[in-house]
Amino acid sequence: MEAFSDAVFAIAITLPIVEVRMPEIKQGDPVLAQEFLRLWPSFVGYGLSFLVIGLYWVHHHFNGMIFRRVTHGFLLSTLLFLMAIGFVAFPTHLFAQYVHDPVNRHAATAIYVGSLTIVSLTWLVKWLHGVASRAIDDRLRRSYVRRMTIQYVATSAAYVIAFLVTLVSWAAGLTIAFAITLYYLRPPPAPEYL
Amino acid sequence: MEAFSDAVFAIAITLPIVEVRMPEIKQGDPVLAQEFLRLWPSFVGYGLSFLVIGLYWVHHHFNGMIFRRVTHGFLLSTLLFLMAIGFVAFPTHLFAQYVHDPVNRHAATAIYVGSLTIVSLTWLVKWLHGVASRAIDDRLRRSYVRRMTIQYVATSAAYVIAFLVTLVSWAAGLTIAFAITLYYLRPPPAPEYL
Amino acid sequence: MEAFSDAVFAIAITLPIVEVRMPEIKQGDPVLAQEFLRLWPSFVGYGLSFLVIGLYWVHHHFNGMIFRRVTHGFLLSTLLFLMAIGFVAFPTHLFAQYVHDPVNRHAATAIYVGSLTIVSLTWLVKWLHGVASRAIDDRLRRSYVRRMTIQYVATSAAYVIAFLVTLVSWAAGLTIAFAITLYYLRPPPAPEYL
Amino acid sequence: MEAFSDAVFAIAITLPIVEVRMPEIKQGDPVLAQEFLRLWPSFVGYGLSFLVIGLYWVHHHFNGMIFRRVTHGFLLSTLLFLMAIGFVAFPTHLFAQYVHDPVNRHAATAIYVGSLTIVSLTWLVKWLHGVASRAIDDRLRRSYVRRMTIQYVATSAAYVIAFLVTLVSWAAGLTIAFAITLYYLRPPPAPEYL
Repeated sequence: MEAFSDAVFAIAITLPIVEVRMPEIKQGDPVLAQEFLRLWPSFVGYGLSFLVIGLYWVHHHFNGMIFRRVTHGFLLSTLLFLMAIGFVAFPTHLFAQYVHDPVNRHAATAIYVGSLTIVSLTWLVKWLHGVASRAIDDRLRRSYVRRMTIQYVATSAAYVIAFLVTLVSWAAGLTIAFAITLYYLRPPPAPEYL
Repeated sequence: MEAFSDAVFAIAITLPIVEVRMPEIKQGDPVLAQEFLRLWPSFVGYGLSFLVIGLYWVHHHFNGMIFRRVTHGFLLSTLLFLMAIGFVAFPTHLFAQYVHDPVNRHAATAIYVGSLTIVSLTWLVKWLHGVASRAIDDRLRRSYVRRMTIQYVATSAAYVIAFLVTLVSWAAGLTIAFAITLYYLRPPPAPEYL
Repeated sequence: MEAFSDAVFAIAITLPIVEVRMPEIKQGDPVLAQEFLRLWPSFVGYGLSFLVIGLYWVHHHFNGMIFRRVTHGFLLSTLLFLMAIGFVAFPTHLFAQYVHDPVNRHAATAIYVGSLTIVSLTWLVKWLHGVASRAIDDRLRRSYVRRMTIQYVATSAAYVIAFLVTLVSWAAGLTIAFAITLYYLRPPPAPEYL
Repeated sequence: MEAFSDAVFAIAITLPIVEVRMPEIKQGDPVLAQEFLRLWPSFVGYGLSFLVIGLYWVHHHFNGMIFRRVTHGFLLSTLLFLMAIGFVAFPTHLFAQYVHDPVNRHAATAIYVGSLTIVSLTWLVKWLHGVASRAIDDRLRRSYVRRMTIQYVATSAAYVIAFLVTLVSWAAGLTIAFAITLYYLRPPPAPEYL
């Protein structure tokens, strides 16, 4: 289980670099440095999806300490979550590529934030399923479990709001999405046991 | 062993997203949203192979509890099965791309269902080899082992039928193949010990 | 260590399928089945590198039981071996693509068999280093260690011969290379302890 | 944790081979051998990034014995380091491709050495964070920890110097960078405990 999801995370996080391709340079044309620097949207996209997927990995790893039983439903909801994780590099790449194009950045931002919204929803499904099927460690304090549930519901709600806001103002929606990511740079709250 | 097959599963399941490429958009042409939505067959293909390969992973993981000895023959039959798993994303992609093309969807469906048939046959070979070489846990009830054997033989037979049906009616063959996949969403029967 | 080399094996074995690309089909042109079948050299290449890399993986896994100490030199020689493993899919693909082209199949076979020769030499380096640095289990019978050394030296010598023969007759050299692969389908000899 | 970083290392190290593509050869044109040999810059790039990333993997693996606690900050600094590792194959490829082009090799070398500098800085951040947050084994001798810190600071400083030198003389800067890599072929100093 762990080896499988770790490998999916690793592929999702590392693969975007393969997408980055230098345009052909004519022999003797001294433009390598400029062409390299013009790829910056791809590098931003790589860094961005590394950050977002990496933070999910940190929290997935942390959650591994909370889940005690591996039920069939938990495997299926993990698959759903990993499917969303494996997908996220694609819209991140689009976002990085079109955010400086005035006519397409509205759509690029909406697609990007929309994809992050879907990832957060699959995470929420996995968590709620784990709680409902009593797959989580039963020595955890109920208040702790409730607090985590509230946090994950709030995160998904914030993403849905961010997505809806992008439909009106791409910059405002994007700001909300970045604020959520920054929030998750904090360490997750330590589990509290009975 | 586990780390290797988990990594093969993870690559097979995640890689198809790399195949998805946006057509070039001319600077200033506001078509990003439409172009993104026109990629839906690729997204369906990604979801579909994630589902099918993911369910095999769940059952492979589950079978890991049943096999107790790692024989040379078991390693070879696992390699054969993983070879089929690593291949399946390719015909799935073809299927998703051509299912809405009236003149090619017949062939696309036959190739897709045919590949799923091959995967199920390699799975059956692995299982039968495990039973024959007594690599499975010898504390399992014989009735349980027999029931699993019947289930896997029946699955392969159903896939062969589905493939033959696609040669006549692609829609009917496809329906059988989807029904098999849906059946495998159920949890595998818990092992019964002596 | 194991997780790293298993992942390298898994990537080397699965990745070639990404290389396989269907030519564009014009909407309404009923050629999907033919185009799919014309890709057979790619499929043969995929199967072939899966087989060769897979058999190395089986023997690497088996050798994991024999090596007891992980020395720095062992890590370096493992890296060298994995570098060769990661490379082998490329010449295999070339071989599968050009073996039916009368003017290029000579070169394609020489490149393919030459690469397999390099892989077997890096394997031999890893083994000899392990024996010389006493990284292998010291409870193994000397006669067993000597027998394995002879087998690996003989394999490398056979590959060197196969490569030299391809320079004269591609078919004869290829036959020797295939015979070596078939030989390695047998289970490795069980370790003998003092 | 280990499975995740091992998989990122494995992908970063193996993936560049996928980038290598043969130009199309016309049926009947006996140029396969020449075309294959003309790909040598790609093969050098593959070998080079395998060596550099592989040596980091060896030292990362070795450091795994030194770190005892996995803190949130350690996970984040590991992510930063892996982001740099996942990136390094790209400039290595550029370097190998343009080092024989007189007008672009200056830029190619600067980009390559600059990227290696960034990797060494993220490694240093990871180490310093581990020491500062007392994540390393507290039974280690202070003198040993100090010596390792000095070595890593010196390595990063040497890379920064190498990068600055490439801006003046690409050959001199490159020589320093290679010297650092060769230095890391030595086994890391054995940990000393109280």
